[in-house]
Amino acid sequence: MAVSATVQHLNPVSPELIGRLTDLLGERLSTNPSVLDQHGHDESYHPTEPPDAVAFAQSTEEVSAIVRLCAEYGAAIIPFGTGTSLEGGVAAVAGGICIDLTGMNQVLRVSVPDLDCTVQSGVTRKQLNHELHETGLFFPIDPGADASIGGMAATRASGTNAVRYGTMRDCVLGLTVVLADGRVIHTGGRARKSAAGYDLTRLFIGSEGTLGIITEVTLRLSGIPEAISAAVCSFPTIEDAVNTVIMTIQSGVPVARMELLDEVQMDASNRYSKLNYAVLPTLFFEFHGSPTSVAEQAETVGEIAREFGGADFQWANRPEERNRIWRARHEAYYAGLALRPGGKGMPTDICVPISRLADCITETKQDIADSGLLAPMVGHVGDGNFHLSIVVDPDDAEEIARADALHERMVLRAIEMGGTCTGEHGVGYGKMRFLAAEHGDAVETMRAIKLALDPENRMNPGKVVQV
Amino acid sequence: MAVSATVQHLNPVSPELIGRLTDLLGERLSTNPSVLDQHGHDESYHPTEPPDAVAFAQSTEEVSAIVRLCAEYGAAIIPFGTGTSLEGGVAAVAGGICIDLTGMNQVLRVSVPDLDCTVQSGVTRKQLNHELHETGLFFPIDPGADASIGGMAATRASGTNAVRYGTMRDCVLGLTVVLADGRVIHTGGRARKSAAGYDLTRLFIGSEGTLGIITEVTLRLSGIPEAISAAVCSFPTIEDAVNTVIMTIQSGVPVARMELLDEVQMDASNRYSKLNYAVLPTLFFEFHGSPTSVAEQAETVGEIAREFGGADFQWANRPEERNRIWRARHEAYYAGLALRPGGKGMPTDICVPISRLADCITETKQDIADSGLLAPMVGHVGDGNFHLSIVVDPDDAEEIARADALHERMVLRAIEMGGTCTGEHGVGYGKMRFLAAEHGDAVETMRAIKLALDPENRMNPGKVVQV
Repeated sequence: MAVSATVQHLNPVSPELIGRLTDLLGERLSTNPSVLDQHGHDESYHPTEPPDAVAFAQSTEEVSAIVRLCAEYGAAIIPFGTGTSLEGGVAAVAGGICIDLTGMNQVLRVSVPDLDCTVQSGVTRKQLNHELHETGLFFPIDPGADASIGGMAATRASGTNAVRYGTMRDCVLGLTVVLADGRVIHTGGRARKSAAGYDLTRLFIGSEGTLGIITEVTLRLSGIPEAISAAVCSFPTIEDAVNTVIMTIQSGVPVARMELLDEVQMDASNRYSKLNYAVLPTLFFEFHGSPTSVAEQAETVGEIAREFGGADFQWANRPEERNRIWRARHEAYYAGLALRPGGKGMPTDICVPISRLADCITETKQDIADSGLLAPMVGHVGDGNFHLSIVVDPDDAEEIARADALHERMVLRAIEMGGTCTGEHGVGYGKMRFLAAEHGDAVETMRAIKLALDPENRMNPGKVVQV
Repeated sequence: MAVSATVQHLNPVSPELIGRLTDLLGERLSTNPSVLDQHGHDESYHPTEPPDAVAFAQSTEEVSAIVRLCAEYGAAIIPFGTGTSLEGGVAAVAGGICIDLTGMNQVLRVSVPDLDCTVQSGVTRKQLNHELHETGLFFPIDPGADASIGGMAATRASGTNAVRYGTMRDCVLGLTVVLADGRVIHTGGRARKSAAGYDLTRLFIGSEGTLGIITEVTLRLSGIPEAISAAVCSFPTIEDAVNTVIMTIQSGVPVARMELLDEVQMDASNRYSKLNYAVLPTLFFEFHGSPTSVAEQAETVGEIAREFGGADFQWANRPEERNRIWRARHEAYYAGLALRPGGKGMPTDICVPISRLADCITETKQDIADSGLLAPMVGHVGDGNFHLSIVVDPDDAEEIARADALHERMVLRAIEMGGTCTGEHGVGYGKMRFLAAEHGDAVETMRAIKLALDPENRMNPGKVVQV
């Protein structure tokens, strides 16, 4: 493996700690090997690293009690939501206790007049939207997977709607967090804005469990738009599709979703999701607003697309038609993997300033061709963010090395263009090697903060920053 | 004084340090008493606390060199922008060296296609918008005062446009920061989103110079809207005005500005800004968008206002008419002070969830009546944020105590409603006493971060968190 975690195992978890956790949780403390295995991997090619035990927590107080016991015995702690991350964030690279938060699945409070709610961190985004349905509100952030809200906060997730609604950074108002010593703090609040002290909310968002465990999240919600229209449009070349995106952003059209799938991905998605689109670079759009505004947006974007040789928009206005399109988009990763039975995904996640997006994508397409690898491309291109899912044989070291080299070229190009190694997946341990190239000496400041909040390096050790 | 800083003076600044700073800066190191005085106070009632010297820096490298010298001699450092803050943030409560950043006034880079720019921290918002004018872009955050971009980032400023465009938290993409030991780091980047490590950008935004000195800021810009309309509308009661605001927000109208001035403030503003409006609770609106969208927004809000007894909208569509309205809004603080010659402003800045805004304002109005104080009210009510500028005689201890009591009642009410003691002014030392009530044990986490990044407590000591 070219990429691996370099952290040492901490104190082995003692039978005494297991005993005390069992006293606390009963059958909700598991050392069943298949449960351990299931909690030791995410959806990527990173190998399974099982924890020593899994603690299924049901409340903030219980998480706090588990963390206090782990502190007493010097054990590492790895929080676990739905396991849909992609950078090895849940791998127990130093052993330790995994805290599974899926039992913390209560929507605690919804305020329709304030457009906000508070949820336990194990609530998934689909569950939340289901529970919100009658209120006329929705939670817009959609990373594809039915991830937990806590996991999405921990990785600073975003996805298809971010071009209009922002990322978890923007949509979280406050958090409840269990610190490394078991203390519980509340960050932020319910005011729309505050200048009262350091922004701990934003510090924990994207910290991937390395500074504390997020147990509750207060979210800003949005009103379900009066009108929604989706459309699909294919282009002769990927440059034409990307130029359509750039012009749309620069024209200030408040498009809600604008997703690119290259011809390799369209072929995979047609097969996997039983669709019938042209095997060409394609944009999926969605427009939200009043009926007048949606019509105005669609007309403006339609004109831009035609300028760049876009085929006629294929509209999907009825909810079931729209769902079909977005289900296909969300299945893109699995559609790519299905092209090669037994293949695993090495995800890439660069994000660049939009003025560099066309160059970045063109040069990346050439790199893929040169590499001989299978690498469908999808992108939240309105944000300048796109992914290759390089489909690899995880047992073929030469192929992994080739994929790593492709990934590294992409990342260094993105950084050189003023961009980032990860737009939304997070660092885990898969992208730690790129942080110094991207942030230089600021990594030392991150390390100082990590040591201030977790001096024993027990909170998801071996992730984000090496200490 | 009921509110005062409790920090001890650090090592007195030695003649040797002054000598070495003079070697570095020549005439740009000043110990002239009037220069010191001018740098020891802001625009509020907080008393002047002059620094020992003022260093006029012209580059990040120079700030770094000054900070290294101060580190060597154990001197405190206070960054200074335009001095328009309101919570004693620039007062040299522990003595030390003030670094005046107004000489760092270069717009370093503008990218029209990416809608972003990088500026030195001494650039003011009006200067930036002047320099951007030909590009079709603008920087939307407008706290009223012509503050420096660095100061606005340091205090997490917002203002009249935040309801649509967000605060400094949302509009900053990256920073250059000089740390306590003189090292220079770059946070964030130019990508629209990133999940690459801890969000240091958001940590420094709102840290008020206590963790490092912001010397450069990369900003997200917005396109100048195709159409802009402003309107003024008065209401029979303040509840009617506030209910109009709440209904507008809940209807999802993307209003760009929505400002409340109570009848006391309208009277003051009519006199000071030579206006002729009814002396009634009044809303100032601004709508941005396509001509169709602006018309649609204005119609919806007009209907809502009529439901609550609003008088007809008085429109201001020509730029000079709009400027007249917003100049009056921006002069509101000075208009209030002018009601009482020799009076100084004790600013308040609470922000609550919008569903509590009507109750909060009604109860606050009663408190003002009970207090017998002169306290005009203005508010960025679309965000749930409003201010009293309590006009006090700074030499009258009894009156200051009465004003403090009014302020404290407001803050505790806001916190009880899920809100904050400061929506946008920051903590300085004027609001430190409220942080524990608002954040509880999370203040300990802030303190841990402060000590990790500034172990000797030399960066703007005595502000935000006590160490």
